[in-house]
Amino acid sequence: MAEQPEPTGLIAKSGIELLTFGTPNGLKISILLEELKEAYGKDYTYQSINIMKNTQKQPWFTAINPNGRIPAIVDHDRGGFAVFEGLAILGYLTRHYDPEHKFSFPVDSDDYSVCEQWMAWQHGGVGPMQGQANHFFRFAKEKIPYAVQRYIGETERLYGVLDKRLEGRDFVVGAGKGKYSIADINLLGWVNAASFTGVDITAFPNIEKWIDRCMARPAVQKGYAVPSYMPITNADIKKKLEQDPEARKQHEESQKFLQEAKEKYGYKYSSP
Amino acid sequence: MAEQPEPTGLIAKSGIELLTFGTPNGLKISILLEELKEAYGKDYTYQSINIMKNTQKQPWFTAINPNGRIPAIVDHDRGGFAVFEGLAILGYLTRHYDPEHKFSFPVDSDDYSVCEQWMAWQHGGVGPMQGQANHFFRFAKEKIPYAVQRYIGETERLYGVLDKRLEGRDFVVGAGKGKYSIADINLLGWVNAASFTGVDITAFPNIEKWIDRCMARPAVQKGYAVPSYMPITNADIKKKLEQDPEARKQHEESQKFLQEAKEKYGYKYSSP
Repeated sequence: MAEQPEPTGLIAKSGIELLTFGTPNGLKISILLEELKEAYGKDYTYQSINIMKNTQKQPWFTAINPNGRIPAIVDHDRGGFAVFEGLAILGYLTRHYDPEHKFSFPVDSDDYSVCEQWMAWQHGGVGPMQGQANHFFRFAKEKIPYAVQRYIGETERLYGVLDKRLEGRDFVVGAGKGKYSIADINLLGWVNAASFTGVDITAFPNIEKWIDRCMARPAVQKGYAVPSYMPITNADIKKKLEQDPEARKQHEESQKFLQEAKEKYGYKYSSP
Repeated sequence: MAEQPEPTGLIAKSGIELLTFGTPNGLKISILLEELKEAYGKDYTYQSINIMKNTQKQPWFTAINPNGRIPAIVDHDRGGFAVFEGLAILGYLTRHYDPEHKFSFPVDSDDYSVCEQWMAWQHGGVGPMQGQANHFFRFAKEKIPYAVQRYIGETERLYGVLDKRLEGRDFVVGAGKGKYSIADINLLGWVNAASFTGVDITAFPNIEKWIDRCMARPAVQKGYAVPSYMPITNADIKKKLEQDPEARKQHEESQKFLQEAKEKYGYKYSSP
């Protein structure tokens, strides 16, 4: 397949334009946009921003997001208004384009605040900490036991909090068993990549069931394919470990390293 | 001074009850509550939660904040409604108790979104990354060069983004030169502890002036004293380094370690 040239500027004239990549943070927005499309016919365009090529550091991009990160959106129907940071994009899109609150809560309701709390909890906790776990356990050239057990440990602690929240609930926020909302969408990409990070998702049974519930939605499936599907979900990793002896061997070695690091430093899985 | 026993439950019957400690995340809320008190006469009570004693992991606390972290609030005037996560607390308090938008923006305005964007940028970036920098550079027993330069480097990158945002502006969000708001309050405690972290704040002249502007407010000064003043502001550290030769020597050694780590691994200060 010939390599696509990287985007050099905006391409749409109307609707929402999403600048994204197939990471957990990118998925939040493509999933919500697919939901809004299905529910209201709201149209959107996307461009793939290859973060390995630092396209997100180009001046045309930092004029949209001064932080130089994906995802970011531009709303061509509202004068080219730009929004960065996943939490803020989900908030903006639902306040403007989810009038029936199918994926959100009225701004004057207590659930709006509860939703904001769990979104902030993801945005300041699960995202950054699981991101650091990925860096030290998967990507960094130097394998540093202290850092590995610190971030895997903290990610596990956070998953424990979420698992407890989901006890007896279908979704994170809302009366009774809860209602599918941006609080779930905001978490899904990260939590459904737990196995990629090295976290044993089977230790969190309520989370596992919640992932299945979310993944069964057609718009979620479609959102996962934007800009292109990255096979790093828990199901993908499970399949790979079953089918690929080399991957399994590497996984076992990694888990041994992690176990030894945990024993040496003792960042205990303690929840909450 | 005799040691105070740790809190064992809520103490107020009306108004806002704040559970906090003198950290950058705690300060956000005490500063806003002092502003609301001065502007509207809104009353609040606080309890000091000693995070070194893990009071925030006690069941009565995790019933309020399932994540077991400070700050958290309980609104006794609205049925004991509990709010956790700094970003969500600032949002809740202003939506309910800042009717004239002295420290916030109307929910249907574009500035509400811009404010949410910069708050999320702090909540998912400056807070977690500067927090990791503090951990590896100040607190961790093991001094790990790779981790030190990674987190100091990322904190510096983020400060570069903020410094650029503040070019020609008085405050982070709002038309013209901007208006003091929760976007500033949310950032202040962290950014005004840059020197404690080991970041050279003089490299960011727009930020330095903005800190002075914020710190000149009486309510900010009062908020800094809740639950008790922690001498870790940039001014405190500067004074200490001027007056205490031992502290200066330690600082120089730390900076040398940092410089060598930066040269070895090259997490370049690149902004944005």
